[in-house]
Amino acid sequence: MKVNSPLSRVAVVLSRTSHPGNIGAAARAMKTMGLGDLVLVAPRHFPHPEAQALAAGALDVLERARVVPTLAEALADRTLCIGFSARGRDLSHSASDWRSAAPEAIAATADGPVALVFGNETSGLSNDELLACQRLASIPANPEYPSLNLAAAVQVACYELALAASAFAVPGRPARSPATGAELEALHERLRSALLASGFLDPAEPGRLDERMRRLAARLDLETEEVAILHGMIASLAQRE
Amino acid sequence: MKVNSPLSRVAVVLSRTSHPGNIGAAARAMKTMGLGDLVLVAPRHFPHPEAQALAAGALDVLERARVVPTLAEALADRTLCIGFSARGRDLSHSASDWRSAAPEAIAATADGPVALVFGNETSGLSNDELLACQRLASIPANPEYPSLNLAAAVQVACYELALAASAFAVPGRPARSPATGAELEALHERLRSALLASGFLDPAEPGRLDERMRRLAARLDLETEEVAILHGMIASLAQRE
Repeated sequence: MKVNSPLSRVAVVLSRTSHPGNIGAAARAMKTMGLGDLVLVAPRHFPHPEAQALAAGALDVLERARVVPTLAEALADRTLCIGFSARGRDLSHSASDWRSAAPEAIAATADGPVALVFGNETSGLSNDELLACQRLASIPANPEYPSLNLAAAVQVACYELALAASAFAVPGRPARSPATGAELEALHERLRSALLASGFLDPAEPGRLDERMRRLAARLDLETEEVAILHGMIASLAQRE
Repeated sequence: MKVNSPLSRVAVVLSRTSHPGNIGAAARAMKTMGLGDLVLVAPRHFPHPEAQALAAGALDVLERARVVPTLAEALADRTLCIGFSARGRDLSHSASDWRSAAPEAIAATADGPVALVFGNETSGLSNDELLACQRLASIPANPEYPSLNLAAAVQVACYELALAASAFAVPGRPARSPATGAELEALHERLRSALLASGFLDPAEPGRLDERMRRLAARLDLETEEVAILHGMIASLAQRE
């Protein structure tokens, strides 16, 4: 995580987590998306070997995690707190879908530190906890079963945030050596003469074979080396005794 | 899951999964995003109580899962297979980032059934497995630690796919009863006269208090009921003996 990244100013706050495995899995989810600041409000079991096991390569996030007794303490230094809820609730808050709201959260890191707040696995955030947040966000989900696992919700939330921050370069295409037009023309000519010689192509009735082969080749985005291999294959197949 | 949804034509294929808990967690991740077709290629342990425990409310997905011995068998009826890889690899495939590629996968469901293919937890997809796929996709992640848990990767992959399919209505704002202009004017007038009476506001030097209060009220998006409460509060505070 880069220190100057907006993501370094965002904490994930897990309130009253029951299963220590979820704490570890959440730490892993955070780190894969470039977040590192984990705050645990009154976790039932922590530290715990299961948390460590599920953190995998994110043990550092787990070891730096702060444990606090109340949500108020977790949020004391935050200037924007976003509570995650599976459904919109009948509260004065209106829930935004997180894809739309994540860019606002990134923008808000310029003004002060931000918290993403997640409730207990079974009951979610209590009304009191939601009221401690200035925003309420939902992850769009199947209305017939919207119940994401806690760490899975943290994963999606951090993923959206990282993409909103353009934190990671989109993986590039591997370097390619596309064939030139001349190389492709030579290949088509090689195929054409081989098929003429074999009798597959009738010069009086060529039909649309050449056109079809050119379309196929266009879709292939052939590389120089692949053109050479095809040349060799055609030459080999076209051998006459 | 709606039968006619593009999501009903997408299978998640887990190849050589080591930990049965991940199979259950993946089933849950799928169901929260409206997918239901799970195929397991040579899982190390399945069925298994841990898979059932982590599937939570997605036991139906687990029970319908097909177990097959080879990836070829899993993909036999598929017309598009997308392999997920943490990094682009030096293969003829070029890895697309999944956010860009998910709409293409949804479009492809019109032509035939699609598979999202995930490899073993430790080693990912083997080169042979990747070569059985027509596309290679990556989830953008922290280059210093791109190792999403298997079920977390399934969660993000299915989430992107569901959003690309516009499968779920974005959660609406709760119904509101915003205050009218007349109600707001009456509130400002009430506050003004109370502050004049209390001596807080000097009619000769009103300053910009009214302007600041109006800005504050505008940010609040007050509802009719909230205006009534504020009326009552001001009236109560302004009581003179």
